[in-house]
Amino acid sequence: MGEPLRVIQFGLGPIGCDTARLVATRPELQLVAGVDVDPDKAGCSLRAVAQSDAVPDVPVVASLAEAPAADVALHTAGSRLDAIADQLRTVLAAGLDCVSSSEELCWPWYRHPEIAAELDHLATEAGARLLGTGVNPGYVLDLLPVLLTAPCREVRGVYARRVVDLGTRRPQLQAKAGFGMTPEEFERLATEQAIGHVGLEESVCLIAAGLGWELDGVDFDMEAVLADEAVATPHGQADAGQAVGSRQRACGHRGGEGLVELELEMVAGVAEPHDLVRIAGHPPLTVQVEGGVAGDAATPACMVNALRSLRLAPPGLRTALDLVVPHFVAPATGD
Amino acid sequence: MGEPLRVIQFGLGPIGCDTARLVATRPELQLVAGVDVDPDKAGCSLRAVAQSDAVPDVPVVASLAEAPAADVALHTAGSRLDAIADQLRTVLAAGLDCVSSSEELCWPWYRHPEIAAELDHLATEAGARLLGTGVNPGYVLDLLPVLLTAPCREVRGVYARRVVDLGTRRPQLQAKAGFGMTPEEFERLATEQAIGHVGLEESVCLIAAGLGWELDGVDFDMEAVLADEAVATPHGQADAGQAVGSRQRACGHRGGEGLVELELEMVAGVAEPHDLVRIAGHPPLTVQVEGGVAGDAATPACMVNALRSLRLAPPGLRTALDLVVPHFVAPATGD
Repeated sequence: MGEPLRVIQFGLGPIGCDTARLVATRPELQLVAGVDVDPDKAGCSLRAVAQSDAVPDVPVVASLAEAPAADVALHTAGSRLDAIADQLRTVLAAGLDCVSSSEELCWPWYRHPEIAAELDHLATEAGARLLGTGVNPGYVLDLLPVLLTAPCREVRGVYARRVVDLGTRRPQLQAKAGFGMTPEEFERLATEQAIGHVGLEESVCLIAAGLGWELDGVDFDMEAVLADEAVATPHGQADAGQAVGSRQRACGHRGGEGLVELELEMVAGVAEPHDLVRIAGHPPLTVQVEGGVAGDAATPACMVNALRSLRLAPPGLRTALDLVVPHFVAPATGD
Repeated sequence: MGEPLRVIQFGLGPIGCDTARLVATRPELQLVAGVDVDPDKAGCSLRAVAQSDAVPDVPVVASLAEAPAADVALHTAGSRLDAIADQLRTVLAAGLDCVSSSEELCWPWYRHPEIAAELDHLATEAGARLLGTGVNPGYVLDLLPVLLTAPCREVRGVYARRVVDLGTRRPQLQAKAGFGMTPEEFERLATEQAIGHVGLEESVCLIAAGLGWELDGVDFDMEAVLADEAVATPHGQADAGQAVGSRQRACGHRGGEGLVELELEMVAGVAEPHDLVRIAGHPPLTVQVEGGVAGDAATPACMVNALRSLRLAPPGLRTALDLVVPHFVAPATGD
């Protein structure tokens, strides 16, 4: 093992702090700073903000300009690409490779083709690599289905479904799924895109691009799942008639035919959480992940495990389709 | 799409002929010749040998020296690396990229480190790439489990099992699994390594190498599964007390602890064929492929689909761990 890679943790919400804690377990990675605009965090030690003694006592600063030299940024400061584009510009201008949990960045050409082209140009110029990934989007509903076609002589369609028990997840995710809202409130916030998981359409696009399918478009809908009777979770309660979660669907189609269909159901108290992938092809495949990939624990892992593969890829804006198969690697010491 | 890649189908047994038929469906690939030492095949048209009008009317020759110029060889002429090393030497000397179904080539350092080093050197010198792959080894019990660790923060062990209904498979595979043999015959041929699936230990090594685990060794055993009553298949019958198939296990261990455990059960009339992968880690994962990946249809697909990824890799002897995620890509024309 050579010198450890110097890592900046950019964004210190729950996922960012957890990512810092995971990085701290890897001898090949060395946290050198945290970045967060929150005045309650900037100026503190990353160890204090991430609430773990295993995290090194390095500064949290308010902007990348104040951070020490580094090799890599792990970016967990937003889903929407237009809102984080300036942050990514500074990361790339500093020549850092960057893995971001931004859902839209998993396939940025779908909603923001101009920003995507610009970031690709900046990254290429700087000799840096930029990747959006996570467990969803980034793995369960896109990379995994794509790899599942490797034994197929022919593929006619891809269907995948993720069913999450919202009751076991962090409060932010419950709110995003509309938990506890009246149908009217849910409808209004869904229309404003203030609730709902971001990234299902991006996963559709990634699969279609991988399999060589040009789509006419991607249809999307989202509906509330309403409680028959009151449902309580550690973070709150939904009364009868209120939403216990949501069901989202995205369908990539061509010539009126659905080629890629993805469903995400996030409902408190769901009986059998799971991930399911069906490949309609020759041979056909049906693959089930019992209980589903645990999202909160897995997103930092997807990011950190992708880093090695990303650094083998050419500079530029990359996607999961460009990566040497990402996987866990045991720390060189320990285990 | 540029010019199609010129492909030589090297080896025209059942898998080789089926691979030729699959290649013929891909506009980005162009069959230019078949190679087979069998005097019943050399001198014929590949179309006749592969028994498909979709296959082009190109010659089958007895050796690569007689074949026209090409870019790629798909090699399906043997499992054991020492037996096919000369063929691979000529392929690499001709500067061809090569995907082989040789099971031992999936992790050649396990049984043949010297041949592996030599082939790696030859390939690198020639600017060519060499890969062993297939559905097993090459995918279900190695590449798939490796990718399934991508969402894991920690992995303590990998367990995978493939259960195949031998009754639905080609007669060669039934014979390899000992179908219809007495226990004594089975024992003798197993000891001589004349029966049994090749590649389980190679899959263990590939997983361990990917996950960064140095093994003390790989244990292997194979046993007959005996019929309680007579079992008939389209290709033959096993009487009560004779073998209806076999069960093989390989376990990669370190410090007395099993880190990678693989099982392959090939038994005629098995109730629920399936593939199963369990990752002991955080988060843990249990993934099941309903019915299992259909082996005979999938091996040519694994080879052909790996070609694109292989050609993105640097020259040399490569494994699944070096590949950009392999997957199906729809032909540029058609669908």
